[in-house]
Amino acid sequence: MQNSIKSSKTGQGNEDHVFAADLGGTHLRAATIDRDGRIIHRLKQRTPVAARPEDIVCALVSAARDCQTLGANAGDNIRALAIVVPGSVNVKEGIVVKAPNLPCLDGFPLTSALSEALQRSTILENDANAAAVGEMWQGAARGKRSIVCVTLGTGVGGGIILDGKLWRGANGSAAEIGHMCVEPFGGVACACGSRGCLEVYASATAIVRMARERQPRYPASPLSGVADLTAEEVYCAGKQGDGLASEVFHRMGAYLGIGLANLINILNPETIVIGGGVANGWELFERDMRHQVDEHAFPLPAAQVKIVPAECGDDAGLLGAARLGFCGNSQS
Amino acid sequence: MQNSIKSSKTGQGNEDHVFAADLGGTHLRAATIDRDGRIIHRLKQRTPVAARPEDIVCALVSAARDCQTLGANAGDNIRALAIVVPGSVNVKEGIVVKAPNLPCLDGFPLTSALSEALQRSTILENDANAAAVGEMWQGAARGKRSIVCVTLGTGVGGGIILDGKLWRGANGSAAEIGHMCVEPFGGVACACGSRGCLEVYASATAIVRMARERQPRYPASPLSGVADLTAEEVYCAGKQGDGLASEVFHRMGAYLGIGLANLINILNPETIVIGGGVANGWELFERDMRHQVDEHAFPLPAAQVKIVPAECGDDAGLLGAARLGFCGNSQS
Repeated sequence: MQNSIKSSKTGQGNEDHVFAADLGGTHLRAATIDRDGRIIHRLKQRTPVAARPEDIVCALVSAARDCQTLGANAGDNIRALAIVVPGSVNVKEGIVVKAPNLPCLDGFPLTSALSEALQRSTILENDANAAAVGEMWQGAARGKRSIVCVTLGTGVGGGIILDGKLWRGANGSAAEIGHMCVEPFGGVACACGSRGCLEVYASATAIVRMARERQPRYPASPLSGVADLTAEEVYCAGKQGDGLASEVFHRMGAYLGIGLANLINILNPETIVIGGGVANGWELFERDMRHQVDEHAFPLPAAQVKIVPAECGDDAGLLGAARLGFCGNSQS
Repeated sequence: MQNSIKSSKTGQGNEDHVFAADLGGTHLRAATIDRDGRIIHRLKQRTPVAARPEDIVCALVSAARDCQTLGANAGDNIRALAIVVPGSVNVKEGIVVKAPNLPCLDGFPLTSALSEALQRSTILENDANAAAVGEMWQGAARGKRSIVCVTLGTGVGGGIILDGKLWRGANGSAAEIGHMCVEPFGGVACACGSRGCLEVYASATAIVRMARERQPRYPASPLSGVADLTAEEVYCAGKQGDGLASEVFHRMGAYLGIGLANLINILNPETIVIGGGVANGWELFERDMRHQVDEHAFPLPAAQVKIVPAECGDDAGLLGAARLGFCGNSQS
């Protein structure tokens, strides 16, 4: 019990925080969050470069205790723990199935380890699913019941909420929106083993690749000759009107629009939220994205759907985790 | 009340049939169906070439009375009516929104007209949605809870059932699977106004178009020189090993596989059922379809999903309508 979270002496009434942790490949972000979505205390640290899952568990336990001790209402109790990871998870059994950036966790029963260490019920969720829940609870899809959230980061993730419930699929692997095929024949190779996936045209990695490919054709571009380009540099150049960067974002927006049109035709959602770092380039890709949606989506659902940038930023996953910790999978 | 269905004198216990009608652009197919999915009596007639919705209502009323009078258990009563139409419907209000092959019904409140005429509660559903319910109840997806049903007919329709419930979308226009984009740039024009839709590569209409386009390249094919080709003729030639027909079905199967891979990556269903007349060409397109699924779908959901031909044939819509008449939208 040495690691268990100290019980509040102020009684049951204060046991209304969830400790949420977003366990990324690089950073561990964590917070205590109340029932209204207020972040009481937060921390960010490097994810331990761990060979063993126990090191990850230790880091999470320590983070939970820090949040508990240091929060504005220090001493308040935590009712539940909610952890999100970048990978596939077995929600029911609380097992990380496959997390490419945290391979030591593959197959590890993370919820039972944390429940045991901290004596609190614990839930586990995929980070893109949690982001969808977060945006519906506190972000760009407030008040909606059926949404798709597309996260454009290093890769492209997705979360689907239908009639207030996360749709995880028959085997927990639904909403692999980044691996929708948007270039059926002769597409660019994807890390998943396929070709032509949305991820290879709309992720930060794709922005950098497409910019690199175009450097020889734009010798006057400030991006040409830069060896270690970042997506942010491409974005900044695009904001300045650089032709190379503009072409990259046009292409990215067009493929994103085709993917969104497919989501609209298949799911007919109320709202599509676009998050992740690449979504910061909104003004550079919005026009091409909407053009392809208009070209390829059915008129009725296309006219009704709102396509909007995310509002929760890096907190979407944490907020969604907290919401799932409070309410389970019913978001309505 | 002259049109109302005569009440059974044998009492409540026999009131366990649904009158189901599949109102196609060419044929009206109807049946009384019991709670076990048995078809008690059926009829098929030409859909009236109607300028007025009242003519359609009259034909349906007459069909219901015929089924009632002529059934094996004539005199048994009908508990509800369930009508499916090839078009978009407002299920809640029982209104046909848009039925391209039955334009006189656009905007018509079909359920209230039938309820009034026959004094029975009436439901209205899209034909492809009903086919999905029928296949889950009595066909290739028995015992499953999350399926996609793709109907390859004159067009390509779809129905999505998630965790036992039809997913109709925020505005009733989900599952437009035929209009998923499978050829993003430079695709063939579709009747919906877009280009590169699955429908223009995988429908009966597409089979005929692709065969026609190839006639000049296959002068020795028995299909060359045939002016009014049908999809069935292309299929028959394919079964005989004809090169033109084989090429058409290879292409059709590849595009279908890309569409299915997208459905698998987005929805992670347990089963995908392929129905409609074109599905009869299964052995001619299966290999290319599965090859593209293997190329483009995520390994886990692709390994788990069953892709199977439909089993209910032309009765899928009728059976699904009946099931909806008995149980509403909860199929589990």
